[in-house]
Amino acid sequence: MNSFNQLLLKFEDYFNVRHFPISPATLYDPAQYILGIGGKRVRPVCVLMGNELFDEIKQDTYLAATAVELFHNFTLIHDDIMDKAPLRRGMETVHMKYGEATALLSGDATFVQAYVYLSKLHPDALQKVLPLFNKTALEVCEGQQLDMDFEKKETVSMEEYVEMITLKTSVLLAACLKLGSILGGASVGNQDHLYEFGKNLGIAFQIQDDYLDAFGDPSKFGKQVGGDILSNKKTFLMIHALETAPASEKEKLNQLLQSSPADKVEQVLNIFRNAGVDAWALQLKNEYYEKAMHHLEEIAVMNKRKEPLRQLAQFLIQREY
Amino acid sequence: MNSFNQLLLKFEDYFNVRHFPISPATLYDPAQYILGIGGKRVRPVCVLMGNELFDEIKQDTYLAATAVELFHNFTLIHDDIMDKAPLRRGMETVHMKYGEATALLSGDATFVQAYVYLSKLHPDALQKVLPLFNKTALEVCEGQQLDMDFEKKETVSMEEYVEMITLKTSVLLAACLKLGSILGGASVGNQDHLYEFGKNLGIAFQIQDDYLDAFGDPSKFGKQVGGDILSNKKTFLMIHALETAPASEKEKLNQLLQSSPADKVEQVLNIFRNAGVDAWALQLKNEYYEKAMHHLEEIAVMNKRKEPLRQLAQFLIQREY
Repeated sequence: MNSFNQLLLKFEDYFNVRHFPISPATLYDPAQYILGIGGKRVRPVCVLMGNELFDEIKQDTYLAATAVELFHNFTLIHDDIMDKAPLRRGMETVHMKYGEATALLSGDATFVQAYVYLSKLHPDALQKVLPLFNKTALEVCEGQQLDMDFEKKETVSMEEYVEMITLKTSVLLAACLKLGSILGGASVGNQDHLYEFGKNLGIAFQIQDDYLDAFGDPSKFGKQVGGDILSNKKTFLMIHALETAPASEKEKLNQLLQSSPADKVEQVLNIFRNAGVDAWALQLKNEYYEKAMHHLEEIAVMNKRKEPLRQLAQFLIQREY
Repeated sequence: MNSFNQLLLKFEDYFNVRHFPISPATLYDPAQYILGIGGKRVRPVCVLMGNELFDEIKQDTYLAATAVELFHNFTLIHDDIMDKAPLRRGMETVHMKYGEATALLSGDATFVQAYVYLSKLHPDALQKVLPLFNKTALEVCEGQQLDMDFEKKETVSMEEYVEMITLKTSVLLAACLKLGSILGGASVGNQDHLYEFGKNLGIAFQIQDDYLDAFGDPSKFGKQVGGDILSNKKTFLMIHALETAPASEKEKLNQLLQSSPADKVEQVLNIFRNAGVDAWALQLKNEYYEKAMHHLEEIAVMNKRKEPLRQLAQFLIQREY
C-alpha cells in the first residue's frame, strides 16, 4: 500500500513526458503548456488509489489516470476561455498566451488525447471504463453550464447549488476512484460505495472552499479572502444566508450584491456571522464528510487498505488554511 | 446493395431523434439545434457504404455513423466560433444564437456524445474502431490549426496546402469509409485501399470546390462566386498562380491581395486565366480522382458492389455547378 504522496511520485514519474506530437507545434505546444503548469494531480492519483484499495496497480490504471488528467486539463483550458480568466495557478492561461481560437482547439486536442490513452486499455477493461468516463465528461459539461446559468439567475436554491457543484467537481473525483476500482477488480457494490465516498468528499471539499474564501486565514489561504463576495458569487454561504437571514438582513445582502462599497467584504461577513452561516457551513461540511466516511467503511476490504483514503480525506477536508 | 440516396434515407430514419438529455436545456438544446440544420450527411452515409461494400449493414455501423455525424457537428460548432462565422447553411451559427461560452460547451458535449455512441459498439469492434476515430479527430484538429496558421503566413507552398486540406477534410471522409469497412469485416488491405479512395476523392472534391468558387456558374453554385478571392484565401488556384505566374503577373497578384479594388475578382480571374490556372486545376482534380478510382478498383470484391461508391464519386466530383 502506498500513501497519496508515494502514488503522486509514481504518477508524476509516468506522466512527466510530452503527451502530444511535436508538429504542428502551434496546436500541441499550448496543450503541453498547461500540463506543465502542474497542479496537485489529485484526480489521477485517486485513480491509482481506487485500484490499490483492491489490488496491485495495473498498467491499465496508469493509462486511465493519464486520460483523467488530460480530461481535467481540457476542462481547465475551456473553462478559462468561458470565464475569461487571465491566470491559472499564477501563470498565464492558455487563451491569454496563445489566443482564444488556438486555446479552444488545443483543448479539443487534449480531450482527444485522453481518449487515445483510453483506447490503449485491454478491450474488456475499455468496455467497462469508457461508459463511466463518457457519463462523467457529460456531467462535468452540465455542471459548468449550470454554473454559467446561475450567474444570470436572481435566486439559486440550495438544492440547485448542490446539484451544480456535484456535477461540476464531485463526480469527477468520484469517477476517478471508481475507474481505479474497476481496474482493480472491485465488485459493483464496492465500486458504488467508493463512488459515493468520492462524491460526498467532493461536496464537503467545496463547502470548505467556500468557507475558507470567506472566513479563511489570509496568510494560509492561497487565494484572496473575500474573492467570492467581491464577485457576487452564489456560494453555499451566500445561498444559505439569503435563505435564512431575517428579512432586514436579507434586504441588506441583496443591496450589497448590487453595489460595491469599500467595506463590502466586511459588511457581508457581518451578515453571514449574524445569521450563523459560518457554524452552519462547518456543520454541513461535516455531514458530507461523515457520509463519505460511512461509504468508505462499507467497502468490503481489510480496514488497513483504507488507510491512504482516510488520510486523503483528512488532508482534503481538515486542512487548516 | 443500396444507392447513396437509399442509405441516406435509412440513416436519416435512424438519426432523426433527439441525441441529448432534455436537461439542462441551456446546454443540450444548442447541440440539438445544429443537428437540425441538416447538411448532406455524406460522412455517416459513407460509413454505411464502407460496411455494405463488404457485407450487410450491421447495427454497430449505425452507431459508428451516428458518432461520426456528431463529431462532424462538434467541429462545425467550434470552427464557427474560431472563424467568427455568423451563418451556417443559411441559419444562425450556434454561437450567434446562444453565445460563445455556451456554444463552446455544447460543442464539447456533442463530442462526448459521439464517444457515448461508440461505447455501445461490441467490445471487439470498439477496440478496432476507437483508435482510428481518435487518430482522425486529432488530424482534423491539426488541419484546422494549419488553416488558421496559413491565414497569418505570407507564403504557403502547394505541398503545405495539400497537407492541410488532407487533414482538415479528406481524412474524415476516408476514415468514415474505413470505419464502415472494418465493421463490415474487410481485410486490412481492402480497408487501406478504401481509405486511400476516400482521401484522394476528398482532395479532388476540395480542388473542385476551389475551382467553382472562382470559375463556377453563379446560377448553379450555392455560394457567392469569387468569395475566396475577396477574402484573400489561399486556395489551390491562388497558390498555383503565385508559384507559376510570370514575375509581373505575380506582382500584380500580390498587390491585389493587399487591396480591394471594385473589380478585384475580375482582375484576379484574368491573371488566373492568363496563367492557365483553370485548366491546371481541372487536370489536378482529375489526377486525384483517378488515384481514388484506382484504389477502388484494387479492392477485392465483386465489381458490382462498387457501383454505389462509383456513383458517389461521380456525384461529388463531376457535378456541373
